[in-house]
Amino acid sequence: MEVTKEQIAEWFKGLQDAICNSLEVLDGKSTFMEDQWNRPEGGGGRSRVIKDGDLIEKGGVNFSAVSGPTPDKILKALNLPEAEFFATGVSIVLHPQNPWVPIIHMNVRYFEMSNGVWWFGGGIDLTPHYVIPEKAKNFHQHLKDACDKHNTEFYPKFKQWADDYFFVKHRDETRGIGGIFFDRMTDKEGRSKDQQWSFVKDVGETFIPAYTDAVKGLRDKHWSESEKNWQKIRRGRYVEFNLVHDKGTKFGLDTNGRTESILMSLPPEANWEYNHQSSSEIEKETLSFLKKGIDWV
Amino acid sequence: MEVTKEQIAEWFKGLQDAICNSLEVLDGKSTFMEDQWNRPEGGGGRSRVIKDGDLIEKGGVNFSAVSGPTPDKILKALNLPEAEFFATGVSIVLHPQNPWVPIIHMNVRYFEMSNGVWWFGGGIDLTPHYVIPEKAKNFHQHLKDACDKHNTEFYPKFKQWADDYFFVKHRDETRGIGGIFFDRMTDKEGRSKDQQWSFVKDVGETFIPAYTDAVKGLRDKHWSESEKNWQKIRRGRYVEFNLVHDKGTKFGLDTNGRTESILMSLPPEANWEYNHQSSSEIEKETLSFLKKGIDWV
Repeated sequence: MEVTKEQIAEWFKGLQDAICNSLEVLDGKSTFMEDQWNRPEGGGGRSRVIKDGDLIEKGGVNFSAVSGPTPDKILKALNLPEAEFFATGVSIVLHPQNPWVPIIHMNVRYFEMSNGVWWFGGGIDLTPHYVIPEKAKNFHQHLKDACDKHNTEFYPKFKQWADDYFFVKHRDETRGIGGIFFDRMTDKEGRSKDQQWSFVKDVGETFIPAYTDAVKGLRDKHWSESEKNWQKIRRGRYVEFNLVHDKGTKFGLDTNGRTESILMSLPPEANWEYNHQSSSEIEKETLSFLKKGIDWV
Repeated sequence: MEVTKEQIAEWFKGLQDAICNSLEVLDGKSTFMEDQWNRPEGGGGRSRVIKDGDLIEKGGVNFSAVSGPTPDKILKALNLPEAEFFATGVSIVLHPQNPWVPIIHMNVRYFEMSNGVWWFGGGIDLTPHYVIPEKAKNFHQHLKDACDKHNTEFYPKFKQWADDYFFVKHRDETRGIGGIFFDRMTDKEGRSKDQQWSFVKDVGETFIPAYTDAVKGLRDKHWSESEKNWQKIRRGRYVEFNLVHDKGTKFGLDTNGRTESILMSLPPEANWEYNHQSSSEIEKETLSFLKKGIDWV
């Protein structure tokens, strides 16, 4: 029998637990606090946030499973009549203390409607304040390995999708070094629901090893005020992407989602300088990597 | 003869000069730097920014006069065939050093198309980090006086429009104490173009006296880390409004406007805390004033 929405939600809940446990060990100082919330129209979630850690300055690992009448926006986009929906997923954003450590984001999600429509979506992407090519390669290798286990066409396709999605159009730069992004994944392309689900689970389980590697050798690297200032400028760009371009954020806010859970992605502190010009070579090098189509692996 | 677009642009340029001069005197420490820019499709602007002043931590006073083929978005909204457009205006946002001093914003603008369509728009609104009722009353009195000279229906109408416009929907709070907002002001309501223009000029000239009063008695008020932190949290909400809700920002970014000039409105530094809860009475009092429909005058 095919996996059910209840089983998917249960697995996502377990993924949230496992990731929070691993992150607490990795951080070594702070622990998560949890807010459980209910959605008036149906369902709810467990928001978990961590702050002032040794590694993580501010982060969230959110699980939700919500249901009710399908928002008009979705029905219109799909040109479908009224239906009930169910959506569940795990969303993560971690802002590190150390400017040398990248920001990481992951989302895995499942959506279905009472009319039989369903799909998976998700992605992982990395936003280093300083791009270090061998670290970028390693991160993409983790994602490619997870993809290749399922279909060798996935990585190139989903890597390009991430390049296109995590793009700050008004700055003409990518958010970071990208990763993978996929959406509306159904059984219409010769893979069964259980096969697609198995891929989504592998994406979820790639998070901890990929992040552990991304952090390695960087979390204790010395930084000064100059690196911290650059981090805050780059965090400003992260805010711009999330509030101006990110479809998930927009959809959440438009449909009266839980604001504090949606905006957990925002950094603890962000700066804006008028027309900031990078003076250091390493900043300029990072900017040169913020473009689409770089083949990291 | 009716005022022409060239005359309007010239007057706005002069307004920018006058306001920058007054602000430099008021600040007493920093001066504006200027960037002149050209728009590939036609026209350009003078962006003026000030930072690290005694009063103003980061601010911009921008003039622009741009022209070219009308963006599709506008043509579609108005259901009109292709036409050339001309748009000119002055936009101001000032972020103060002292948390007791409010953020202020003003915009006055004129738009016309080669098919004869034209309108004025604009607004002034105040975003105190701490709402002080007598200061709010004084600010609104300035705006009411400017409005009443022209039409006693303007203030109540444009005050309500500001309440509705400067509203952070996903937070269920107004951006600050509002002010006035108006748009698509034509000669269709019994007032000539020159009469409307005369009102817009008065709005522009209200800026300096209104801001001078808003600052008085507050710029030297003692503040500690706790007030600075609250200021950064409130600045975060300002960022949220500008990037998620503000139609001018969205339109500018969508139509390939000059990003640095559009985003000069963003604060030097903003903080986000998950689910920040105000502990002090004065913060709670401020929050209680962030709602529509307060009759300040």
